[in-house]
Amino acid sequence: MLEERLQTIQTWLKNENGAYAFIQGKANLFYLTGFRCEPHERLVSLFVFQKEEPILVCPNMEKDLVRQAGWKYHIIGYSDHENPWDLISKYVATLNINGHNIAIEKSLLSVARAEQLKELSPEADFICCETRLMNLRLIKSDEEIAILREAAKLADYGVEVGVHALSTGRTEMDVLAMIEYELKRKGIAEMSFGTLVLSGEQSANPHGKPSMKHLQKGEFVLFDLGVVLDGYCSDITRTIAFGQITEEQQHIYNTVLQAQMETLKLCQAGTVLGDLDRKARSIITDAGYGSYFPHRIGHGLGTEVHELPSLNETNKDQLQIGMTFTIEPGIYVPTTGGVRIEDDVLITTDGYECLTQFSKELQIIK
Amino acid sequence: MLEERLQTIQTWLKNENGAYAFIQGKANLFYLTGFRCEPHERLVSLFVFQKEEPILVCPNMEKDLVRQAGWKYHIIGYSDHENPWDLISKYVATLNINGHNIAIEKSLLSVARAEQLKELSPEADFICCETRLMNLRLIKSDEEIAILREAAKLADYGVEVGVHALSTGRTEMDVLAMIEYELKRKGIAEMSFGTLVLSGEQSANPHGKPSMKHLQKGEFVLFDLGVVLDGYCSDITRTIAFGQITEEQQHIYNTVLQAQMETLKLCQAGTVLGDLDRKARSIITDAGYGSYFPHRIGHGLGTEVHELPSLNETNKDQLQIGMTFTIEPGIYVPTTGGVRIEDDVLITTDGYECLTQFSKELQIIK
Repeated sequence: MLEERLQTIQTWLKNENGAYAFIQGKANLFYLTGFRCEPHERLVSLFVFQKEEPILVCPNMEKDLVRQAGWKYHIIGYSDHENPWDLISKYVATLNINGHNIAIEKSLLSVARAEQLKELSPEADFICCETRLMNLRLIKSDEEIAILREAAKLADYGVEVGVHALSTGRTEMDVLAMIEYELKRKGIAEMSFGTLVLSGEQSANPHGKPSMKHLQKGEFVLFDLGVVLDGYCSDITRTIAFGQITEEQQHIYNTVLQAQMETLKLCQAGTVLGDLDRKARSIITDAGYGSYFPHRIGHGLGTEVHELPSLNETNKDQLQIGMTFTIEPGIYVPTTGGVRIEDDVLITTDGYECLTQFSKELQIIK
Repeated sequence: MLEERLQTIQTWLKNENGAYAFIQGKANLFYLTGFRCEPHERLVSLFVFQKEEPILVCPNMEKDLVRQAGWKYHIIGYSDHENPWDLISKYVATLNINGHNIAIEKSLLSVARAEQLKELSPEADFICCETRLMNLRLIKSDEEIAILREAAKLADYGVEVGVHALSTGRTEMDVLAMIEYELKRKGIAEMSFGTLVLSGEQSANPHGKPSMKHLQKGEFVLFDLGVVLDGYCSDITRTIAFGQITEEQQHIYNTVLQAQMETLKLCQAGTVLGDLDRKARSIITDAGYGSYFPHRIGHGLGTEVHELPSLNETNKDQLQIGMTFTIEPGIYVPTTGGVRIEDDVLITTDGYECLTQFSKELQIIK
């Protein structure tokens, strides 16, 4: 698996006259080496060449973890008192390198690191390998899909815990704490992003943050959460009615639900991505809430919680079997409250599979 | 407060022939604007000029948050369909700018953003403003100290919860979940870093991760955690004996404790930073564990959990009143287990104050 991925980069380097690709973005590094490490001040990076075997650079104390992750090729390990760039320079000088350009992740690589690369290869020009890497990650293998499916189940469970925790006297942070408590006890060390539990007016703020606000009857409670499992992310949103809600609130809910279900029906190989956004937007606009749906219908999901494909209105690419992404229409009406319903979706030979499965029927918690 | 900080950068720009500083690192942006935002794909950045008023660039939907944070100067807001660089270019063209260089955060700024800056100011050269910014953050104000003191109390509380949660049948992740549950219920949305609860052999791995391993009597349990409160971080480590431990384990504990207490005694304005590391290292080395203390004695603490000063052996700078940092010696003996004791320390006119105050006496949980 890793070999094939590395070979794709090697072939790409040949076509681009690339001397090497220097890769250090967390998700890309994990995808190509199996090693997932939190970004830290010390250098952890991958060099891929056209023909020579790839090398991984990391602190000595992480060498064992890299081997455990399945890395078979050379490792340049370094201690805190050593300059890794000196070691890299010496090693690279022994290689027979073809090509002129250095491929980097332009939106992830710092200027300081780029300057060090420029010292290593003063004659080279920079090209960007990010699009190639993101496209490589676009279609998921069966192995990746199995993990994403498990990650989605844990997201379902998180919502289940949250719904059971709803009670007057509790704050948004109380409910959030309960959700993460139960997930951590199952061994989840990392959430995909900061868990959201937003109630009442706050649910209408797409950038709202959970607070010490107490839950009140008659409000929406919006849950948005996901877990990282074996390097893969899930991402679910459900909105619950806490106590009786007004007819207008119910209308908003039903509109979002209809938009989500109708958009899901279009999910099959060959559908133009922009059509998904347009479908949801037209339903929401027809219901009179067009100006309250300020974001795209969804985003790709994998080793990062936001990756390709981007499900915006102008994307003319087509859905392909093995793509995984979210479908998440929302309506956010100031004061009245916000509703968003989000599932993780996989494109299959038959159409699509919802990886997240928590009920979407309007739930009214008495 | 913010005005003074911005003025310092303006003066620095004059001395460096700087046209403007382009600042977008999370901690630096917060320090200079009061606005703390999670890094995201959209551009959020600060321009500081020699004479012209500074400007902040952010998505339209974050403008309110920026104002709430206390930002008084101009904001360039942009929508998703707008290119913020076009708006910046138009606005900057109306200004009367002195100076030639563009000051950037070289280790934080991406190559892609640097290329956009180069388009904005094709004739300019890049200089680095990171050292200036980090030194500006080095001495804490009374206001900052008050927050750091509260953040440290919450870290104490986290350890207290963890110690009470120790019980056979529970896993490291169970205990971690309980700690974070109680802190989140108090409104803490963000930990300073991934909480560590490491037991037995894992406590001897400075890069260990909490797991589903069950706690066992006769083992050390190491807690390392901290919270982010109003933008400021705390960071505490305590090591607890779970059940009776061997004489060797007690010897290791007492050695670390002695090293920590003796190093604290040196904490006063004027002490050379390297002397702190040397003091702890000599005590640990004399006890025969020199090779099991692989990291520096501590690091600065503030809007980032690792900032200046760096308390390594070779640092010749002196402690100054208002500096805050950790003192955290450790001994990690494979198989036997590891001990680390870490406090957050403030340099005062009288010497020092420990911000974290959880007991350091060896606790044996029966």
